[in-house]
Amino acid sequence: MTQERYIDIPGEVMDIYRSWRPTPLYRALKLEEELKTTAQIYYKYEGTSPAGSHKLNTAVPQAYYNKKAGIKRLTTETGAGQWGSALGIACQFFGLECKVYMVRVSYNQKPYRRSFMEAYGAQVISSPSQETEAGRRVLAEQPDTPGTLGTAISEAVEEAVQCPDTNYSLGSVLNHVLLHQSVVGQEAKAQMEKVGGLPDIVIGCHGGGSNFGGLIAPFVRDKFEGKAMRIIAVEPLSCPTLTNGEYRYDYCDTAGLTPLLKMYTLGHQFTPPGIHAGGLRYHGASPIISSLHNNRVIEAQAYPQTDVFQSAITFARSEGILPAPESAHAIHAAIVEALQARDAGEEKVILFGLSGHGHFDMSAYEDYLAKRLNNC
Amino acid sequence: MTQERYIDIPGEVMDIYRSWRPTPLYRALKLEEELKTTAQIYYKYEGTSPAGSHKLNTAVPQAYYNKKAGIKRLTTETGAGQWGSALGIACQFFGLECKVYMVRVSYNQKPYRRSFMEAYGAQVISSPSQETEAGRRVLAEQPDTPGTLGTAISEAVEEAVQCPDTNYSLGSVLNHVLLHQSVVGQEAKAQMEKVGGLPDIVIGCHGGGSNFGGLIAPFVRDKFEGKAMRIIAVEPLSCPTLTNGEYRYDYCDTAGLTPLLKMYTLGHQFTPPGIHAGGLRYHGASPIISSLHNNRVIEAQAYPQTDVFQSAITFARSEGILPAPESAHAIHAAIVEALQARDAGEEKVILFGLSGHGHFDMSAYEDYLAKRLNNC
Repeated sequence: MTQERYIDIPGEVMDIYRSWRPTPLYRALKLEEELKTTAQIYYKYEGTSPAGSHKLNTAVPQAYYNKKAGIKRLTTETGAGQWGSALGIACQFFGLECKVYMVRVSYNQKPYRRSFMEAYGAQVISSPSQETEAGRRVLAEQPDTPGTLGTAISEAVEEAVQCPDTNYSLGSVLNHVLLHQSVVGQEAKAQMEKVGGLPDIVIGCHGGGSNFGGLIAPFVRDKFEGKAMRIIAVEPLSCPTLTNGEYRYDYCDTAGLTPLLKMYTLGHQFTPPGIHAGGLRYHGASPIISSLHNNRVIEAQAYPQTDVFQSAITFARSEGILPAPESAHAIHAAIVEALQARDAGEEKVILFGLSGHGHFDMSAYEDYLAKRLNNC
Repeated sequence: MTQERYIDIPGEVMDIYRSWRPTPLYRALKLEEELKTTAQIYYKYEGTSPAGSHKLNTAVPQAYYNKKAGIKRLTTETGAGQWGSALGIACQFFGLECKVYMVRVSYNQKPYRRSFMEAYGAQVISSPSQETEAGRRVLAEQPDTPGTLGTAISEAVEEAVQCPDTNYSLGSVLNHVLLHQSVVGQEAKAQMEKVGGLPDIVIGCHGGGSNFGGLIAPFVRDKFEGKAMRIIAVEPLSCPTLTNGEYRYDYCDTAGLTPLLKMYTLGHQFTPPGIHAGGLRYHGASPIISSLHNNRVIEAQAYPQTDVFQSAITFARSEGILPAPESAHAIHAAIVEALQARDAGEEKVILFGLSGHGHFDMSAYEDYLAKRLNNC
């Protein structure tokens, strides 16, 4: 919480950010050509970080502030593994131990994500696990559950509460996480001003809201100041928090250990299908994003996963970068908007966030290419 | 072949290079701290390319020139998959078909490399295969062979010779490949001049010689002009081409389909053990590098794989980037030199090439962390 409009990035954090920041802003010339669109498409690419996604932007300051506070160990949850990898790397930078509860379906779908985290010294546990009360309770009730981010959060929080010198670290949803991620939007806005001015449409994928919130933060002000702009959050049809959730108080986790937050929610007991975009399998949403959505400053769209993967392949084959399934939701919405602009003959400027690469999501691509994915 | 000292990069190639070039040069401050060395360590990182390694630097111009020549389809070999991925992406950029013969041991060790290439539309075959005379002959004689780069080259060449509008493309060894890769060294030298002047030691891993040759090219001239400088090629102990091969004429491939080259060679029938640094499992070496080695302009070192992986982990945990097993050979040699500098109290400036990331080599890291790797 703060009354300040801007918070300086600490020097020790900047020293680490410098190894991959500023990240590139690309104009998707080959994708535009492929779509024959009259729109200009730009994307801000966060996959050049050592963790492979935007998640390191908040992992580093979180590890830094915990280290300064005398904490020796962080626990956390991870879905697809982007966040766990980021926190593992950041903990290593500051000499902290790191324990990651990884949602079962992703733990099984993405075995190399686990090895990646372990290479950085993190301990990785499949969630629900036998290590916590919260985990044991879910296992007793639903032994075959694919797991949820909500349950993994419960396990990580429970352990942090019980162990000395241990804090829980959350990779999305909360205000300070969106604050840390606003470096993405700040850079993107400065880069857009150099090449094409403000965008007409800003698009980000939405799980807990950190990638989306970080990207859109500085553009929201432009919208408040009168710039005509659409800001679109994209989520999976199978976990439609913003498009189909209720706006009310709910817990961040399954067991109800966290404070209540006012947010769009599918209910903290909701178990989404085991889609490959594990980072978007979250029942809730950031309170900041929820408020913006409730006030119609932003809009939300939901798409089924096969359509999203088709756009991911189109993007990879034109732009060369293989996107994470989460990020591919933003690509898909950008393609939909670019095709609408083409059909209407409009010269829209579209900016989307490409939050990470898909190098650890190859089993998903394998399934898609072999036509084994369901379109939920 | 050319008499010119510099060849301009075609505009169409530059347009593509721009999406990841120039690549970053880092000072390894955290690694220096970890080693308590008096040396300065710099590394040039090529893993930010969409293919994840330096290989795209030559894949793009090769696809470009083939397209211009009316070719519709390229065949090639790949070891660990770095080269096959790069050529697959480059072919996609220029609308060419791509068929990759992937060395069997890597095909099995790195299943997601195959999916990665397929995501870009490439066709990937395990080599030796039943698709060619060369492959069938090896399978008949050694049904359990792990495969070799030499055999995979034979298969790709054989198919290119027999199919219309099809060319074979080689990702290393040859002069034009080293020329394309010299963009790495050119950038590194300009970057070094900005920060610390010329290095005292330049280090690169060596398989066929394209990464190593590209990095060292502009520094060789400084050495010829009198700068005291050590230039070190690093190879696996199990495939010691430069450190233990003969300098003579030999074939590039197992079946003897290619022209003879004067090079260091272990014999074109040599089958190295199935180490994880598949890109370094090559019996020969670039004629340019071989000549420089024979004239003692460069030196060569060989290290066993467990030592190399230990250095890879040390590097990942200090610098944050998980290296490819091939690149980790250069890291290991840089660490050895930095420790020697520390013990001698010398302020050496070390530059090494970090040719790619290890995101598709997680089974190797898994084996290393579980202590399942042999130290050959």
